[in-house]
Amino acid sequence: MKLTIERGALLRSLGHVQSVVERRNTIPILSNILIEGAKDALHVTATDMDLSIVERTAASVGQAGATTVPAHTLYDIVRKLPEGAQVEIDGSSDAGQLALRAGRARFSLATLPREDYPAVNVGELPHRFHIPAEEMRTLIDRTSFAISTEETRYYLNGIYVHAHTQGKTKSLRAVATDGHRLARVELGLPQGAGEMPGVIVPRKAVAELRKLIEELDGAIEVALSDTRISFAFADVLLTSKLIDGSFPDYHRVIPTGNDKMLTVDRKSFMEAVDLVATISSEKSRAVKLALKEGHLTLSASSPENGTATEELEAAYEGQPIEIGFNSRYLIDILRQIQGDNAEIALADAASPTLMKDPANGTALYVLMPMRV
Amino acid sequence: MKLTIERGALLRSLGHVQSVVERRNTIPILSNILIEGAKDALHVTATDMDLSIVERTAASVGQAGATTVPAHTLYDIVRKLPEGAQVEIDGSSDAGQLALRAGRARFSLATLPREDYPAVNVGELPHRFHIPAEEMRTLIDRTSFAISTEETRYYLNGIYVHAHTQGKTKSLRAVATDGHRLARVELGLPQGAGEMPGVIVPRKAVAELRKLIEELDGAIEVALSDTRISFAFADVLLTSKLIDGSFPDYHRVIPTGNDKMLTVDRKSFMEAVDLVATISSEKSRAVKLALKEGHLTLSASSPENGTATEELEAAYEGQPIEIGFNSRYLIDILRQIQGDNAEIALADAASPTLMKDPANGTALYVLMPMRV
Repeated sequence: MKLTIERGALLRSLGHVQSVVERRNTIPILSNILIEGAKDALHVTATDMDLSIVERTAASVGQAGATTVPAHTLYDIVRKLPEGAQVEIDGSSDAGQLALRAGRARFSLATLPREDYPAVNVGELPHRFHIPAEEMRTLIDRTSFAISTEETRYYLNGIYVHAHTQGKTKSLRAVATDGHRLARVELGLPQGAGEMPGVIVPRKAVAELRKLIEELDGAIEVALSDTRISFAFADVLLTSKLIDGSFPDYHRVIPTGNDKMLTVDRKSFMEAVDLVATISSEKSRAVKLALKEGHLTLSASSPENGTATEELEAAYEGQPIEIGFNSRYLIDILRQIQGDNAEIALADAASPTLMKDPANGTALYVLMPMRV
Repeated sequence: MKLTIERGALLRSLGHVQSVVERRNTIPILSNILIEGAKDALHVTATDMDLSIVERTAASVGQAGATTVPAHTLYDIVRKLPEGAQVEIDGSSDAGQLALRAGRARFSLATLPREDYPAVNVGELPHRFHIPAEEMRTLIDRTSFAISTEETRYYLNGIYVHAHTQGKTKSLRAVATDGHRLARVELGLPQGAGEMPGVIVPRKAVAELRKLIEELDGAIEVALSDTRISFAFADVLLTSKLIDGSFPDYHRVIPTGNDKMLTVDRKSFMEAVDLVATISSEKSRAVKLALKEGHLTLSASSPENGTATEELEAAYEGQPIEIGFNSRYLIDILRQIQGDNAEIALADAASPTLMKDPANGTALYVLMPMRV
């Protein structure tokens, strides 16, 4: 393999793929990325065995070929090269080495054979549909904060995506929960997604996808089977194993009879929660809401620090109620609400509370209260 | 105590003092700051028993008085209050509590008695002189990177400051070393510093002082005895214990006979060191310099990563020599050099190397080589 590529283009591609490579690997080749020069392009592949990414970048290829090199070392080198440098890559001279040249700098990088690199065997992906990048960002942002990090509940370590039919309305739903809070959004059902199985997309795939599409316009092609999902866009193909487990029946968690309705200015509420929670103990982060007609009082206390209260005007017509929440969970949800107001439906101090976004009727959040 | 103060002014003052307060304290009152309202001003004091800071801020004081409250909690509250808020502080109602009000937010903070707060007993500081803020910043920046963090060598955990006479030239010298590298700068001797003892100013005092004077114009009044030093400027008084130990006789470390002179473009050299060191092992961070007439070749290698070389043009007329350095130490020094070039005087691969800044004749750096 011999090729020349502009430093900026190479850096962009390595930047995309290198975060898939874990910093610590017991299998040496998993610290490497596969680089392949073929037909006017450089293909870079990274994998952690579950999640794989391939990106194509235009390059001037003199001689086709492939090898694998340490991902983070190569990324750091290219990052430190001067802007605009032409990078020459030569893997043909010696089997165990890859030569890299830019200006008067020369590197010889330790390689491992291309044949030993884990193949990304995607198999058949019978369900194929498109989601606009903008809608994919919304879907991820509104749900990913609620993904569980508890490894023992592995079936909650991702976003559950499935097709949903209610009367004549068909939609694609995304749901995440950690048992303390739940987030659900829906999109109009894309063509081709009608027969798809419900799948759980792992946290790491979600996070990598979100980073890669930050500035993307246009649509993402999603393809999936029972066990794998792929996302194709621009010159990138991201493939991930799905979580092999059953997502709980989340419908039962969403309360339907909550009749105490609170409407409050989202920004003021979020700032007030953050302010009074300064007093809460590090561990509980609890904040108490006391509701009576037209009024919302927030309070917090801890033996070490003291007490805090703040009052807000709020539309509330119902029996007075006091209820406690984890302030961080409350703020996570309020951050995702796009409207000026947050709509909150409560039952009592021990039951799940429902939060809605007046600006996005398809988003819905459930939050468990805590004793205060 | 009753007083009103604008949120921005209070935040600024708390921001200055709170970093003196350690996050973990076995003595509860050391987590607190002392706040005193007196005569149109709020005085805030923080201490860790070694280092103390007092700052005065204009405030509207209704009733004089003092108490102590948790430093980080108070800082976090004031940080989260809306810009422009008027903060009312009332410590008169209840002995164990301090009331704080801003808008519709109310806090009651746990206090500890003013009488229990450790007194900052400075004692007599017979030596007094002034240093312009600009010169103080230079003095700290050029030396502080070389301060040792090894607790067993406590006498190296600070900057050694002393008056120095050489012929008719009198200067104030600052020196820091960790045994691997040494940095020395000098200023013209300020009036009043002639009789001062050599003192070791601890790392934490240096770091706090540097932060506080980032944007200061004008002069800093320095006062010291054998055991304490104070810095007064704007509305701040910073006082620190000095390190009770003997700084080594650093003169013996500074080589005088190095005759192999290298002059190299500082920026290119620094970038090249950083680039080739990407290949070095995490542990050694070694980079090798090979010098021959007109030429400097940098190289690095590690079994895991491979090898790297880069060539630079450089003014060198002497016997060819190869010498290794810790790349981080080399970069630390190059970062402090202000001129376009770095001047490096070498003896051999095992002896201390001298580095000078053509733009600042009073700064001098010594770096021990490492075997490569």
